[in-house]
Amino acid sequence: MPDDTTTVAALKDAMRRFVAERDWEQFHSPKNLSMGAAVEAAELMEHFLWVDNDASRQVVGDPARLGEVADEIADVVCYLLAMSNTLGIDLSDAITTKLAKNAVKYPAEQYRGRYGAEDPGKTNK
Amino acid sequence: MPDDTTTVAALKDAMRRFVAERDWEQFHSPKNLSMGAAVEAAELMEHFLWVDNDASRQVVGDPARLGEVADEIADVVCYLLAMSNTLGIDLSDAITTKLAKNAVKYPAEQYRGRYGAEDPGKTNK
Amino acid sequence: MPDDTTTVAALKDAMRRFVAERDWEQFHSPKNLSMGAAVEAAELMEHFLWVDNDASRQVVGDPARLGEVADEIADVVCYLLAMSNTLGIDLSDAITTKLAKNAVKYPAEQYRGRYGAEDPGKTNK
Amino acid sequence: MPDDTTTVAALKDAMRRFVAERDWEQFHSPKNLSMGAAVEAAELMEHFLWVDNDASRQVVGDPARLGEVADEIADVVCYLLAMSNTLGIDLSDAITTKLAKNAVKYPAEQYRGRYGAEDPGKTNK
Repeated sequence: MPDDTTTVAALKDAMRRFVAERDWEQFHSPKNLSMGAAVEAAELMEHFLWVDNDASRQVVGDPARLGEVADEIADVVCYLLAMSNTLGIDLSDAITTKLAKNAVKYPAEQYRGRYGAEDPGKTNK
Repeated sequence: MPDDTTTVAALKDAMRRFVAERDWEQFHSPKNLSMGAAVEAAELMEHFLWVDNDASRQVVGDPARLGEVADEIADVVCYLLAMSNTLGIDLSDAITTKLAKNAVKYPAEQYRGRYGAEDPGKTNK
Repeated sequence: MPDDTTTVAALKDAMRRFVAERDWEQFHSPKNLSMGAAVEAAELMEHFLWVDNDASRQVVGDPARLGEVADEIADVVCYLLAMSNTLGIDLSDAITTKLAKNAVKYPAEQYRGRYGAEDPGKTNK
Repeated sequence: MPDDTTTVAALKDAMRRFVAERDWEQFHSPKNLSMGAAVEAAELMEHFLWVDNDASRQVVGDPARLGEVADEIADVVCYLLAMSNTLGIDLSDAITTKLAKNAVKYPAEQYRGRYGAEDPGKTNK
């Protein structure tokens, strides 16, 4: 199921079936699922804990580590798919809505090459 | 762009454009993106910090709060879409692969109604 | 070294020696240490992921689990002791200052039995 | 109350009083407190999200930012002091015990200048 042809609904359905087959809806409160997502996000982060930013990019050339990282990303997203199922959230809508808000908050002209308001940009670096 | 018709690739493309328009690829190391995902996952969690599991489910009936929660979920997923772009990861494949691994790790018959190995299940509760 | 007689400075010194003996100051940037604290806080949280609030209190009666929890708490604090060393922060001062700020933010009369502004308190529960 | 003369017990007592004055013991389950610690650890981390390791060290020279960082560190530790109170954990003992375990896990000779088993050390860097 590659990204090109897989809808978000298909992934949500796969997650819903996985949960239903185990009768796990009872554990999937928004509180617990948010904790699960945070725990998995921390495990993802742990892969890059002691390396510099540049070194962290080199994971691209390490297939074994890259596979582990993909697994951790999937873990976080699975909890958020489950949460979207539990709460009846349309995730694609939520993402496009948030990107539109962020486009207003961070106008491209003003933030080009600056990560945020406190970043003076290249001239002062 | 509803979940039914939106592919993961379309969301990745939207994220890629957002990043490219701001020349933000330079900030999007795997290390930084994993931190961003963890920060947003914590903000999602904060919505449910002081309530019990049952009370956290009631967010469904609170449209304003539900919108905030959807925003936070979107924030986490956006960082993971960006990370998938940076690392060339097929997110749909990663998710279906992980669900298949978890199906082996947690056989439905054995874990029905039990959140994990340490949960004795309902008969002993 | 029990809490009754151990100063925060003694713990900071123990941490400083541990780091110096391994020449680890080079890895102990504030960025890395904050990630380490967040990773360990997530591991602490994982112990309570699937249980309700009430059940999480029962860890008191489970010495093995309680020891694991104490270990995780120590891990988080160790990173914050290291960060205080790196940044020259007086942790005791920081804590008493923060408690004083919080006492103003959450006046006892107003917040007794309420976790925050959105908690109506017992009469409406 | 500087680190030199402040015992951990004194900080735990200050936290215990703060909680008792607000009748907040009811909210301070280990589950909730672990979430609180993780949320605050993420807020600490957010200060260093987009900067490199070297740049994150420059917070030492920025008194305003340093004060904010000290506040966030205090927030995390406060939750862990509260958790130690709730669970009857001697935090100083937990920390010295953990440092002793880590001294065995990371012998100084073997890990000098290496952050972990996967770090080849300076000669290969």
